[in-house]
Amino acid sequence: MVDTRAASTSTENPGEPHARASMVWDAWGSPSGHKPLPEQIRGLLAQAFGVSGESATRRDEGDVPLRASALSPEQQAGLGAVVGADNISLDHRDRLRHAGGKSTPDLLRRRETAPQDAPDAVLFPADHDEVLALLEYCGASGIAVVPFGGGTSVVGGLDPARGVFAAVIALDLRRLDSITEVDPISGTVTLGAGLTGPRAEELLAEHGLSLGHYPQSFEYATIGGFAATRSSGQASAGYGRFDDMIQRLRIATPAGSLDLGRAPASAAGPDLRELFSGSEGTLGIITAVTLRVHPVPETTAYQAWSFPDFATGANALRTVIQAGAAPTVMRLSDEAETGLNLARAGDIGGAPVGGCLAVTTFEGTAAHVAHRGTEAAELLTAAGGTALGENPAREWEHGRFAAPYLRDALLDAGILCETLETATAWSNLANLKAKVTAALTDSLTAQGTPALVMCHISHTYPTGASLYFTIVAKQAQDPIAQWAKAKHAAGDAIVAAGGTITHHHAVGADHRPWMTDEIGDLGVQVLRAVKNAVDPAGIMNPGKLIP
Amino acid sequence: MVDTRAASTSTENPGEPHARASMVWDAWGSPSGHKPLPEQIRGLLAQAFGVSGESATRRDEGDVPLRASALSPEQQAGLGAVVGADNISLDHRDRLRHAGGKSTPDLLRRRETAPQDAPDAVLFPADHDEVLALLEYCGASGIAVVPFGGGTSVVGGLDPARGVFAAVIALDLRRLDSITEVDPISGTVTLGAGLTGPRAEELLAEHGLSLGHYPQSFEYATIGGFAATRSSGQASAGYGRFDDMIQRLRIATPAGSLDLGRAPASAAGPDLRELFSGSEGTLGIITAVTLRVHPVPETTAYQAWSFPDFATGANALRTVIQAGAAPTVMRLSDEAETGLNLARAGDIGGAPVGGCLAVTTFEGTAAHVAHRGTEAAELLTAAGGTALGENPAREWEHGRFAAPYLRDALLDAGILCETLETATAWSNLANLKAKVTAALTDSLTAQGTPALVMCHISHTYPTGASLYFTIVAKQAQDPIAQWAKAKHAAGDAIVAAGGTITHHHAVGADHRPWMTDEIGDLGVQVLRAVKNAVDPAGIMNPGKLIP
Repeated sequence: MVDTRAASTSTENPGEPHARASMVWDAWGSPSGHKPLPEQIRGLLAQAFGVSGESATRRDEGDVPLRASALSPEQQAGLGAVVGADNISLDHRDRLRHAGGKSTPDLLRRRETAPQDAPDAVLFPADHDEVLALLEYCGASGIAVVPFGGGTSVVGGLDPARGVFAAVIALDLRRLDSITEVDPISGTVTLGAGLTGPRAEELLAEHGLSLGHYPQSFEYATIGGFAATRSSGQASAGYGRFDDMIQRLRIATPAGSLDLGRAPASAAGPDLRELFSGSEGTLGIITAVTLRVHPVPETTAYQAWSFPDFATGANALRTVIQAGAAPTVMRLSDEAETGLNLARAGDIGGAPVGGCLAVTTFEGTAAHVAHRGTEAAELLTAAGGTALGENPAREWEHGRFAAPYLRDALLDAGILCETLETATAWSNLANLKAKVTAALTDSLTAQGTPALVMCHISHTYPTGASLYFTIVAKQAQDPIAQWAKAKHAAGDAIVAAGGTITHHHAVGADHRPWMTDEIGDLGVQVLRAVKNAVDPAGIMNPGKLIP
Repeated sequence: MVDTRAASTSTENPGEPHARASMVWDAWGSPSGHKPLPEQIRGLLAQAFGVSGESATRRDEGDVPLRASALSPEQQAGLGAVVGADNISLDHRDRLRHAGGKSTPDLLRRRETAPQDAPDAVLFPADHDEVLALLEYCGASGIAVVPFGGGTSVVGGLDPARGVFAAVIALDLRRLDSITEVDPISGTVTLGAGLTGPRAEELLAEHGLSLGHYPQSFEYATIGGFAATRSSGQASAGYGRFDDMIQRLRIATPAGSLDLGRAPASAAGPDLRELFSGSEGTLGIITAVTLRVHPVPETTAYQAWSFPDFATGANALRTVIQAGAAPTVMRLSDEAETGLNLARAGDIGGAPVGGCLAVTTFEGTAAHVAHRGTEAAELLTAAGGTALGENPAREWEHGRFAAPYLRDALLDAGILCETLETATAWSNLANLKAKVTAALTDSLTAQGTPALVMCHISHTYPTGASLYFTIVAKQAQDPIAQWAKAKHAAGDAIVAAGGTITHHHAVGADHRPWMTDEIGDLGVQVLRAVKNAVDPAGIMNPGKLIP
C-alpha cells in the first residue's frame, strides 16, 4: 500500500493529506492544464457572440466562505476512530475540493460569492473493512454519505446533500488504490475502487495488460466511479462499456458486504451486479472491481474518414458495427462539430475537412488490425466514406482529454458551454438529434442567447448509438438559470423522442426528474425496495438517482 | 393473431385446445423424434454397463393417475372470466403435459406408478393484459402461478409447487405468439413470449432476419423462457447469450406492468432488465421481448478441428476469442466425448477422429466470413489445431437437437443419462473440470454404478468458458436417489472450485440449494426485497430460484 501511494504522489498538491492530485476547486483538472483561449477562438467568439474573450479573474480557494461543519465533536471522534485521526479532515481546502462535481452549473456556482456548501468532513478509509465500518457508524449516527472518487461527476452526483440528516461526509476512496489478483490467462484483474484511470493503466502495464477505458474524464475519474456510473469510454466499440468489462464487484453497504460475480456468464438468477453498476453510491460503495482486460495492443492503426453529411456517416458506422467489424474507436462528428474542428485546425494542427469527420482506430495483434481494418475500410468506403489518412485520427486522440479545459476558458470569457448525451436505436437517431437540437436552440434563442449546438456519435452498438451534444452560447445575466431552462427542454425532448436520459453521464441529481419516465413507477418502487434492503436508514448519497 | 396461430398448427396434437405441439408427457419432444437405440449403441451399453438395451414399455398418458384439481368452482369461474371459458383447461392431458419439465429426474418420476402431481388448471391467456389480470386474480385469491413456455426446464423450474397456497395453475403463454415492431434498420424485433424458437425464426425469415439463438431446447422452448432463464445458444460466440440480445422487456407482475429498456445502452441507474432476465417466473411474467436480430446470413462456413488434448484445444479457443476473432459457433469436446462421437460415427455418419474435436462455423456477409475465418484459422493452427474440413462441423449441426431423444432411449434401456453445466475463468477451467468429473465419478462409483463422464466447451468468453457434462451410468434400484447423490456432489464441487452453479440451465428448484453460495446472504435478501415489491402475496412460481 505504501509503495503504491508513493508512486502516485503528485507534486501539484504537496500539502494534501493523501497523495494524489485532486482537481482544482473551481475548474477542471490541474493548473498545468489551464490555458488562455487561443487567439483564433477569441476571434470566433467575438464574431459569433459579441464577447471579447477576456478572462475573468478567479478567486483563491482560501478566500471562499464555507458553511461550518455540522459534525459534533463526538461524531468527529467516532469517525476518526474508524479510520485514524490522519484520515479524517475538516480542513477548508479538503472540504471545498469535495464540494461537488464538474458540470457547468457546478462551476458557475463556485463563482458565486455566497458561502459554498461542502461536506462536513472528508474521510479517507484504507480498505473495504474501513468503508464498511464507516457506513455502519454513519447508519447508526444518522450521517449522510457521499462516495467520492475522482470528483468528475457532471450530473450533480457529488452534491453534498444531507437528505433528512443533519450532517454529510464525503467518503474519498483514494487509498483503495491497489491491484490484486492479476490473471493474465483469463485476462482479468481486480482493482481498488480509488485507482484513477492513468494509475490503473500504469499498474496494468507492469503486467503487459491494459483496460482500454478512456472516457473524457479518464485522467481523474476512478475505477469505482466508472462502475457506479456505467461509464463508457472512447474505445467502447472495441472494448465495450465499463459495465461490460465488470466480472466481479465487491460492495460495502450499511447492511453488510456483497461479493457478486462468479463466472464470465451465469444463469443463476437475476444479475445483481447490474443493480450496483450504475447505483451511483445510493445503494452502497463499490470498493473493488474485477475487470476484463487485454494485452497491451501490439499495434494501433489510425484512419480518418470524411462523409458528405451526418446521415450518410451514421449509416456507414451502422453498417460496420452490424457486420461485426467494429474498430476499437469509431466516432462521427456532425457538420457543425466538424466545422468547428476545421475552424480550430490552426489550434490542433489538423487538416481542414468539410462534411462530417469520422475517426477510427484499430488495436490488437498485427493480424487482427489488418483483418479488421480491411473489412471496416471496405464497408466505410462502400457506404460513401472518403479515406482521409491517419493524421486527423491521431490528432483527435492527441487532444481527446482537453475539452474540459477549453470549457473553463470559455466560462471565464463569458461563454456558456456545456454538454449532454443520450442514445437511441439507429432508426430513431436522426429524429432524436433533430428534436434535441431544436429544444436547445429554441430555448436558448428564446432567452436572447442563440446557441451553437454540435453533436457527435462516439458509442455505437448493433442496434443503435449515442449522441453527444456540445452547446455554446453567450452567458445570460444568470447563466445557471439560463442553462437550467435549456437542459430542462433538452431532457423533455429526449424522453418524448424515445431516447435514454443518459447514455454515460449517469443520473445524479440532475437527471433524477426523468427517472420515472425511464423506468416507470413500478421500476422506481423496485429501486426503493432494493435501497431499503441494503440501506435501511437511507444514508447513502441522498437526493441522487432514485426519485 | 388467428393467422399466426393457424400457421403454427401442429398435426401431432390435433385435439389440443391451443394449436401448437406440446411435448409428450413422459419424454422429450414429439413421437416422431423417438427412435430405438441404434445397434451400435446397444453393443456399447452391453459392453460398458452390462445392460441389454431392451426398451421398457411406456404408459399411455390417459392411464396415469393424477391428483384431483384443488380449484374451487368459484375459482374456476373467476379464472375463466379473465381468459374465456375456452382458455382454461382442467383436462387430464393438459394438466399432465404441464406437470413439470424434462430433467432426467422429471422423466424418471413420470415412470412412477403413484399419482402424478400436476397444476390444478392450465390457463391460456391471449395477451399481456390478460396475464396481468390473471396475476391480479391469483394474488387476491391465493393461487400460486407457474409460468409455462415450452416446458423444457431441466432444473425443476416448472414443478407445480403450491408454496403456502392451496392451489397452483400453469400459465401457458402459447397464445402470445405474435411479432411486432420489426425494425430492420436497428436490427430489432419485438416477439411475443410464447413463440417457440422455430416459429420465431420462421416469422423473422419473412423479414430477412434471424435471431440465431439455438440452445438444445430450441425446437420447443420459447422466447419468454429464454429470457426468464438466461438461455445461451450454440451460436453464442457469434450472437451472444440471449440476455445479451435483449433490448426491452415487457413484464406483468402482480403489482403491475414494467416496460424496461429505452436504448441500446444507458447509464440511467441500475439495469432493471437484468433483474427480470433470469427471474424464472418468480417476479412476474415476461410477455414480450424486444431483441437484437441480424440479417439472415449471406453465407455460412464450416470448419472442424482436431486437437491432441483438451488443454491444447481449450487454449486455442481462448486465443481466438481473446483476439476478437470469434466464430459464430465454437465448441470443443473432450477426449471422452470425442471418443463417443467416434464410436457413434457409424450412426451419425462422421469421420472418426481421435484427440479432441472442435467445431467452428462462421456466418455473415461473404467478406466477414472470409476475414474472420482466415483470422480464426490462423490462430487455431498456431495453437496446435489440425483442420479436419467441413464435414464433422456440418454433421454436428445436423444432429445438434437430437441428444434429448437419445437420452429417452437410454432411460428406457435402464441407463441413467443426465447433463449439467457450469462456467468459470479460463485459468480455473481445467481445475473445475477435474473436480466436477471426480465428484461425479466418485459418487456414482461409490453407489456401485461406475459412470462415463464426458464434457465439452460450448460457450466461450474473453475471460472464461462454460463446461457441459454428460453423465452415463447404469441405473441403480432407485435412479432418482442415485442421481440426486451425484448431482449434490457435483454442485458442491462446482461451488468449492469457484464455478457458477449454472451457466445456462437456470436455477429452478434443483439449483436453489446453492443460490446462497452464488450471491451471498445479502444478495438473497436483495432478491427477496425485489420479490416483495412486485409479488407481495408471493404467488409467483413458489419454491424456485430464491432460497
